[in-house]
Amino acid sequence: MRTTIAPGCHPPSGRMLLLTPGPLTTSDTTRAAMGRDWGSRDEAFVALTGRLRTRLAAIAGGTGTHETVLLPGSGTFAVEAALQSLVPPDGHVLLLVNGAYGRRMVEMLVRLGRSHQVREWPEDEAVDAGELDRILGATPSITDVAVVHCETTTGLLNPLEAVAGVVRQHRRRLLVDTMSSFGALPIDAAGLGLTAVMASSNKGLEGVPGIGFVVVESQHLATCKGNAVSLSLDLHEQAAGFRRNGQWRFTPPVQVAAALESALDQLAAEGGVAARGGRYRRLHALLVEGMQALGFETYLRPELQAPIIVTFSDPGPPFAFEAFYDALQAEGVVIYPGKLTQAPSFRIGCIGAITEADMRRALEVIGRHRPRAESAGREV
Amino acid sequence: MRTTIAPGCHPPSGRMLLLTPGPLTTSDTTRAAMGRDWGSRDEAFVALTGRLRTRLAAIAGGTGTHETVLLPGSGTFAVEAALQSLVPPDGHVLLLVNGAYGRRMVEMLVRLGRSHQVREWPEDEAVDAGELDRILGATPSITDVAVVHCETTTGLLNPLEAVAGVVRQHRRRLLVDTMSSFGALPIDAAGLGLTAVMASSNKGLEGVPGIGFVVVESQHLATCKGNAVSLSLDLHEQAAGFRRNGQWRFTPPVQVAAALESALDQLAAEGGVAARGGRYRRLHALLVEGMQALGFETYLRPELQAPIIVTFSDPGPPFAFEAFYDALQAEGVVIYPGKLTQAPSFRIGCIGAITEADMRRALEVIGRHRPRAESAGREV
Repeated sequence: MRTTIAPGCHPPSGRMLLLTPGPLTTSDTTRAAMGRDWGSRDEAFVALTGRLRTRLAAIAGGTGTHETVLLPGSGTFAVEAALQSLVPPDGHVLLLVNGAYGRRMVEMLVRLGRSHQVREWPEDEAVDAGELDRILGATPSITDVAVVHCETTTGLLNPLEAVAGVVRQHRRRLLVDTMSSFGALPIDAAGLGLTAVMASSNKGLEGVPGIGFVVVESQHLATCKGNAVSLSLDLHEQAAGFRRNGQWRFTPPVQVAAALESALDQLAAEGGVAARGGRYRRLHALLVEGMQALGFETYLRPELQAPIIVTFSDPGPPFAFEAFYDALQAEGVVIYPGKLTQAPSFRIGCIGAITEADMRRALEVIGRHRPRAESAGREV
Repeated sequence: MRTTIAPGCHPPSGRMLLLTPGPLTTSDTTRAAMGRDWGSRDEAFVALTGRLRTRLAAIAGGTGTHETVLLPGSGTFAVEAALQSLVPPDGHVLLLVNGAYGRRMVEMLVRLGRSHQVREWPEDEAVDAGELDRILGATPSITDVAVVHCETTTGLLNPLEAVAGVVRQHRRRLLVDTMSSFGALPIDAAGLGLTAVMASSNKGLEGVPGIGFVVVESQHLATCKGNAVSLSLDLHEQAAGFRRNGQWRFTPPVQVAAALESALDQLAAEGGVAARGGRYRRLHALLVEGMQALGFETYLRPELQAPIIVTFSDPGPPFAFEAFYDALQAEGVVIYPGKLTQAPSFRIGCIGAITEADMRRALEVIGRHRPRAESAGREV
């Protein structure tokens, strides 16, 4: 049975559960932080900006070595800003790709006309540090390596430590898209020698969307003047601006910034990245166990799976994703379409300001709307 | 006397008055619209996005001829997106400049390596349509003209109708940065034959910051595939995405979008652009009259002044802008530094969700903190 609700309304039973890669479910406290106005050049907002920069660098493990450059916009803007600001125009980038977000970085470099090469793996395999070692050994022209930490396409976790170890050994730079892992999984930018960590306000940090940022090695950043072809996306100029007067170069989304600070307070109160990652792992375990009990199969081998978002294979008729999505949405549970190039699939996220009770409710709703052939499906 | 308040707190007496070019004072209703979560691919949010696109095109006078392309980010992102997406790589742009925002467009084209030429006027003079006619007549290679409608540098209103008439007569394209005038002054995109109108959520529309947009002539937009070198700032691809499935290509700032829809509702309830412009003109008259009574002088000749933001000359010692700014800010009145290249000055805005009583209160605060030499200053 499908409950019809007016578009734009909360389901009668309570708040929306956004089991997606973001925008996510946020806490009432986070949204309440957007309740006031701020002058963008005011002392109070400049101080707030400074705290965000310090705290985000700390979460990335870059205190003292790295600095945060904030940008209005989405995470994609931050990735593009990093690629064009931090790779010199005469650089040559090796892109390690195993999903749509890796391919998106390739498209950015193609458009920018920046020299690069691509090593691609299937979407259900991690990038391989041994192969990376071989390529870097054979290709001295590579100046920079770029990789996605958790590929939101599938939910796969790439082996950041191993990749970083190889890149460091070959003395190249490493830029990491940590969009969906930042705040949820530990990142040690200084220890791993990461040049840049790109992320956004609205995933593991549980803020609202509207800010992308890059935590950049300060020593490298100082050499990046003039690299960017975009005025808006120039990280060097924005970093110089922050150092000069603490202000954003272009109108900041002040309410989104205030919500992010509140979200960081709540992250700290929860116990930091370790505790948040622990909650996500519990939600992930509940989700996978519950979905398997309902007869759904995960796409990735378990050892490759990050506790962020899970890809489930489309079980085929009588299951039909659109009808399933609509039925869940009408009960306030929002899931996500698949993004695989190969196989029909859908995705369910396990991040955001949600509890185990929320996940159990989602599974109960899913169980009621999972269509079954008369003779098919496991017993529950 | 300066009242000390904790940074980040509202003044005890009430809300902040942001008499700046934005972020501005917003209404409680607008900020309350940010109180819920939205899935970015959900029917309800897709519908909201569609309504924003239709309504913004209508405000620009482009219903049926133009379409709105929304972007996460600030207004500057929208201007840069327009320049790189709508001018073909083999185009040649004439930039009409009389302030910092015109110069910013020059910097964008320099970085992008796009062919252009600049005609610059002093900051206290409007761009001249006769001179434009002469240049276009003499320079057939010019494909596009770009100009700022209201130069926020000074508050000067450029003669859009005259400029558009000349550009149309010479059959070139015209891109107009209407950042601070959109929603406050009438714009007739179809009637004037404007190719693009760039603006943002947080000025005359009185939304919160975080969305830039371009209202583009649909016929031209269709020819723009492949122009942009930036993936994030590609208006053609974003427009194609909106047409395909109504969705934003990259994570939208969902709460900012909801606030913008609420702000558009309030604009309509006020009586549309004519009524809002009327309120701003009344606020502007109050401001100028009040400041003149306090002995301040406006920088621009009155006939060049838009009812958006006013530049006042720095009267010199004992007046000191920093101390003056701090004293006002402590009482919840936020003004803005000057941006003139020539003369010391400061700016006071008259846009945002403020009333005539608010402006009178601001003037009262300014009057109390305006330092005077013993023998200087007019009688009040």
